[in-house]
Amino acid sequence: MSSLIGNKLKIGLFGESHGSHIGAIAYGFPSGFEISKDELNKFLSRRKTGQNKFTTQRKETDDYEIVSGYYNDRTTGTPFAVIIKNNDVNSKDYEQLKYKMRPSHADYTGHIKYRGFEDNRGGGHFSGRITAPLCVIGGIALQILKSKGIEIYAHIKSLYDIEDLPIEKVSIEEQKKVCEKTLAFFDDEKLEEAKILLENIKKEKNSVGGIIELAVYGVKAGIGDPIFDSVESRLSSMIFGIPGVKGLEFGCGFDCAKMKGSLHNDPFEIKDSKIVTTTNNSGGINGGITNGMPIILRTAVKPTASIGLVQDTVDIKEMKNTKLEITGRHDPAIAVRIVPVLEAAVAISMLDMILENTDI
Amino acid sequence: MSSLIGNKLKIGLFGESHGSHIGAIAYGFPSGFEISKDELNKFLSRRKTGQNKFTTQRKETDDYEIVSGYYNDRTTGTPFAVIIKNNDVNSKDYEQLKYKMRPSHADYTGHIKYRGFEDNRGGGHFSGRITAPLCVIGGIALQILKSKGIEIYAHIKSLYDIEDLPIEKVSIEEQKKVCEKTLAFFDDEKLEEAKILLENIKKEKNSVGGIIELAVYGVKAGIGDPIFDSVESRLSSMIFGIPGVKGLEFGCGFDCAKMKGSLHNDPFEIKDSKIVTTTNNSGGINGGITNGMPIILRTAVKPTASIGLVQDTVDIKEMKNTKLEITGRHDPAIAVRIVPVLEAAVAISMLDMILENTDI
Amino acid sequence: MSSLIGNKLKIGLFGESHGSHIGAIAYGFPSGFEISKDELNKFLSRRKTGQNKFTTQRKETDDYEIVSGYYNDRTTGTPFAVIIKNNDVNSKDYEQLKYKMRPSHADYTGHIKYRGFEDNRGGGHFSGRITAPLCVIGGIALQILKSKGIEIYAHIKSLYDIEDLPIEKVSIEEQKKVCEKTLAFFDDEKLEEAKILLENIKKEKNSVGGIIELAVYGVKAGIGDPIFDSVESRLSSMIFGIPGVKGLEFGCGFDCAKMKGSLHNDPFEIKDSKIVTTTNNSGGINGGITNGMPIILRTAVKPTASIGLVQDTVDIKEMKNTKLEITGRHDPAIAVRIVPVLEAAVAISMLDMILENTDI
Amino acid sequence: MSSLIGNKLKIGLFGESHGSHIGAIAYGFPSGFEISKDELNKFLSRRKTGQNKFTTQRKETDDYEIVSGYYNDRTTGTPFAVIIKNNDVNSKDYEQLKYKMRPSHADYTGHIKYRGFEDNRGGGHFSGRITAPLCVIGGIALQILKSKGIEIYAHIKSLYDIEDLPIEKVSIEEQKKVCEKTLAFFDDEKLEEAKILLENIKKEKNSVGGIIELAVYGVKAGIGDPIFDSVESRLSSMIFGIPGVKGLEFGCGFDCAKMKGSLHNDPFEIKDSKIVTTTNNSGGINGGITNGMPIILRTAVKPTASIGLVQDTVDIKEMKNTKLEITGRHDPAIAVRIVPVLEAAVAISMLDMILENTDI
Repeated sequence: MSSLIGNKLKIGLFGESHGSHIGAIAYGFPSGFEISKDELNKFLSRRKTGQNKFTTQRKETDDYEIVSGYYNDRTTGTPFAVIIKNNDVNSKDYEQLKYKMRPSHADYTGHIKYRGFEDNRGGGHFSGRITAPLCVIGGIALQILKSKGIEIYAHIKSLYDIEDLPIEKVSIEEQKKVCEKTLAFFDDEKLEEAKILLENIKKEKNSVGGIIELAVYGVKAGIGDPIFDSVESRLSSMIFGIPGVKGLEFGCGFDCAKMKGSLHNDPFEIKDSKIVTTTNNSGGINGGITNGMPIILRTAVKPTASIGLVQDTVDIKEMKNTKLEITGRHDPAIAVRIVPVLEAAVAISMLDMILENTDI
Repeated sequence: MSSLIGNKLKIGLFGESHGSHIGAIAYGFPSGFEISKDELNKFLSRRKTGQNKFTTQRKETDDYEIVSGYYNDRTTGTPFAVIIKNNDVNSKDYEQLKYKMRPSHADYTGHIKYRGFEDNRGGGHFSGRITAPLCVIGGIALQILKSKGIEIYAHIKSLYDIEDLPIEKVSIEEQKKVCEKTLAFFDDEKLEEAKILLENIKKEKNSVGGIIELAVYGVKAGIGDPIFDSVESRLSSMIFGIPGVKGLEFGCGFDCAKMKGSLHNDPFEIKDSKIVTTTNNSGGINGGITNGMPIILRTAVKPTASIGLVQDTVDIKEMKNTKLEITGRHDPAIAVRIVPVLEAAVAISMLDMILENTDI
Repeated sequence: MSSLIGNKLKIGLFGESHGSHIGAIAYGFPSGFEISKDELNKFLSRRKTGQNKFTTQRKETDDYEIVSGYYNDRTTGTPFAVIIKNNDVNSKDYEQLKYKMRPSHADYTGHIKYRGFEDNRGGGHFSGRITAPLCVIGGIALQILKSKGIEIYAHIKSLYDIEDLPIEKVSIEEQKKVCEKTLAFFDDEKLEEAKILLENIKKEKNSVGGIIELAVYGVKAGIGDPIFDSVESRLSSMIFGIPGVKGLEFGCGFDCAKMKGSLHNDPFEIKDSKIVTTTNNSGGINGGITNGMPIILRTAVKPTASIGLVQDTVDIKEMKNTKLEITGRHDPAIAVRIVPVLEAAVAISMLDMILENTDI
Repeated sequence: MSSLIGNKLKIGLFGESHGSHIGAIAYGFPSGFEISKDELNKFLSRRKTGQNKFTTQRKETDDYEIVSGYYNDRTTGTPFAVIIKNNDVNSKDYEQLKYKMRPSHADYTGHIKYRGFEDNRGGGHFSGRITAPLCVIGGIALQILKSKGIEIYAHIKSLYDIEDLPIEKVSIEEQKKVCEKTLAFFDDEKLEEAKILLENIKKEKNSVGGIIELAVYGVKAGIGDPIFDSVESRLSSMIFGIPGVKGLEFGCGFDCAKMKGSLHNDPFEIKDSKIVTTTNNSGGINGGITNGMPIILRTAVKPTASIGLVQDTVDIKEMKNTKLEITGRHDPAIAVRIVPVLEAAVAISMLDMILENTDI
């Protein structure tokens, strides 16, 4: 029933792709935090469309307006709301789509759920555009976490058949800088290959999927709860909320299925008077609770569902099979743009868990 | 803070491995459902220990007692509580473990979180034993779903290097029967290989991981919600609550990252006057909402953390590196026993979502 | 941590008195409901300021803008958001108040909670102004309930020493019309007395309290839940959220304390083949669940805390006792304006409970 | 759907009057708290039946068993569960009641809600007996609060027509001792009158209502949240969960309706370098947040619904009017026994709010 998540920091999203505004509320930001607008804008620009030829050429002005919970450049602690006006709306593109269900979009499921009353233009509430306000809240959460010594970095682990270096093999300095590149690849050769891939995919009127990998540094041990409020459970319900995510793994994830316990178990050792593990196959989480090591996770992002190629589908009004050709400008790979969205989503969820555990 | 989950059907777990009882509460079972105790006992026996030589030889009597919400063999609709007495408790095994942290267990994270006051015997609240009451509630949820035409089947997709057939390649009849086998493999040859693997792993005092695959049949289109209350989000926070799960994917999951949109998208077609998709790469879920196709998911289960081999670890009392040799009887692969647990967990979560959507 | 409430219909409020916007989100409106803007505007005008000389002369333009969840004049079922721009803002009035705590306002408690970072102008998030967006959502909830045969009426049960007729002594026709009067009194003589009282109170630079009484008609038996999700619990957490409410009672309420069981118990009888009670001391609720009789409740509303008389208080900057004279225009009795707010609040909560119980 | 409440400390109740067990779970107790069993038993004895001739003569053995979350005499921090075996069960008394609805009980509403599948014996889940496990959890919450300098005292403010002294007129020492009296009256003359009243009421086979007044001392300023998570909202949803409560007021409550602002407003002053208010009409809460003054509240408790006098009612099986004579042993005034229940309920809710605010 809700596009709402969190315990001590609750986040609600609203808005449709072609409605008047999209936006978000955050209940539970600590009071008195001074937001750096520069840093926030820089972060938001990473998600923006029309940035370069590797993302959709639609120009969405993501000019957000903070309408409450913010006073004298600082959070007040009361509900924080942000709205973004929708502009570059070309609803005509979607007229032919009213009854022709786009494959692997939410057109059909939304139509059933909302009984035909949904605003289907541009995917409505299901549009990836809803991640813009998520990024505003998440961008602020990232700043708050940073002030507590916690940093989050993500990159494109793989795009179609192109594999980047694993995040654990790369220095934190390099992780920090990857967001400044055209595409978030550590390996510059692979980055160039990825550019060519995306150009070709666009020409083919097709799309590709990818895997985003993310690391959280600086979270102390003891955050999270057993069973259903495990760090994995909390992060997963947030991350599977991002449109396009179809898989999630922590630590060595699915690879653990092919391992023996003697290899997979992370031995403890004392290093510089601190308890650490010599390997990090657990991805920083044991029994649902952080162990002080970096939290490592990977998400599988499906290929953009909107492709220019002719597709088979049904016309639900006439209840007959038909063909569909989606026009308009689309991302060759939403994975590319999900990099900052994943950082934002994880930041919100981690901040929520940390705020809940400040009494330890 | 809680071992509690759900919206309209809320489930809470409690208990420690070596405490007096473990148990569960379910808030929101529909009233008047007649529970088949035979069917429930048969289901519970699948999770039980000491069943055969492929699971731990500890004998846990999982005799549950329903203490409320149940009258004249039917659910009343008021809170449903079940308790299970702990018996075969050998706390001595755990004495040496008080300060020696078992690698990849929750000993250390629990110790930090609960500040040394945790009941560490047998893993305490983090023990896999907590899945026994989950299975009582889940076993009933499975029966309620079945009465609504919804069925859930799971099998061992892979165990270490042994791969079973994908669930979509197997008839529903065969899926139904897989639970009667010693190990839940469709392919009998692979099953025999798996037996030998497990015997060898036990001899090695080691353990292995695996992947469990599950399908839900009969869920109509329109169940679930956008964004954070997506079917994937809801199922994931439940499934990542199962001890040992480190990865989860829906539909073609991580494989989607290597696909083009033209291949990944599931075209709609009309078949027998119903709207279906010709492929099911989405695993029955679009935009977080069910599309009427089978829901397909896979979870990665790590190797049992308790192994008999000597391991490196720390003694947190003396704050020094040390060696640890875990004695006692342990599962060579918890993946094997997680098959019914996953069915139970998914059943609870699906029933919750379906009860929320009865007004459609 | 949150200004958020509800289960199946969740409502979140945001905004400060002198911020750029105030607003509300509703998660869970049924899809396809056609909102009558005329009816909604008529309802909202009842809460508006500057209506007549009995309310504050501040002119707040309560022009709401629905920014999501609304398409072709109907609810879509996705998150419904409404924003209201703040206009008639005279922040100067509040400059002297930055460190002088207004007695019985939230200035001091907000200052402690938000550590001095709160937007204190005009009471900030604690301002009665936050009830404007609540009334937009509530006004729509009232329309949805009406379409289901449920109606809600409220009146001023007492204002200072002036008592109106009890709602149960008045025909539903008269209850329906009371909202069209200058003050919501059934008894016209008392209404005239109340006008004179309010004029005098204004001249005195003082304020008065009152009791609002409300009835809900048409709710079938079986809505609500035992214990903490009782209809009383659900309504109370909503109603005590309205600024100024300090007491709440159901049925004969506090009077039951002076009654014997033989008088208080509501005997059942069959009337027109339906089970009813001959009296309604329970106010339509037994064991937390509706019994089909009208739900009757009363709330005590404190005198407006803002009065023009000089008051004793402290200056928290200089930490010394001081005097305070509040200037500006204020309501002589917020009770008068809480009549529609209470209707809105109860409508939201009742609709939430009814949506949860549609499967009965 | 649930008998569950709380944010950081969540409490769930379960059980029926004549089922095998009743019980409670608490999620979120801090770890390491040493429970005084003596103190707890002393507290529980205050709620017990058969104590003296002023309460029901049914003997319920409230021997609780803590089954989880408790180790070495201390809370572990993991889910805390307590069960109480039901003994003195005389289900025969209730056979005649299966179809004859007891007036002002939940028989009829429960029957509709649970469609005839409810366990109606002894009121089932709606029985006041459910307050026994609430008192176990609440008794521990009281101890935890006490360790933080917070104390809670309650007394019978009025019983039928007998009025006790207001709690604010009595020293804290006297408040502390009132629980040791046969009836919780400060005024010993009134106490004697109340004894005679209750004896007479019993002879009359009737019952009476009353008002319980409660004070919380030692809560610092800044606890609670605006709007729907106000201290009043949080306490009210808890308190209206207690069977028999039909009204609740804070501070001067309903009396504020008859007051002018100049009298009602609580002026601030500095006293011993601390900010206090000279009066406490707000009952320690402004804008939903504590102001550091004692929290004062009063609840109206209806007369025991079970009376021995013949009553009019309906037989729902034969759908005809009939007479009912309730046999068995009942409390002449449940108000008398609600004194410790209210303390328990308020303690749980206050502890929840304080645990949420430890980061201030």
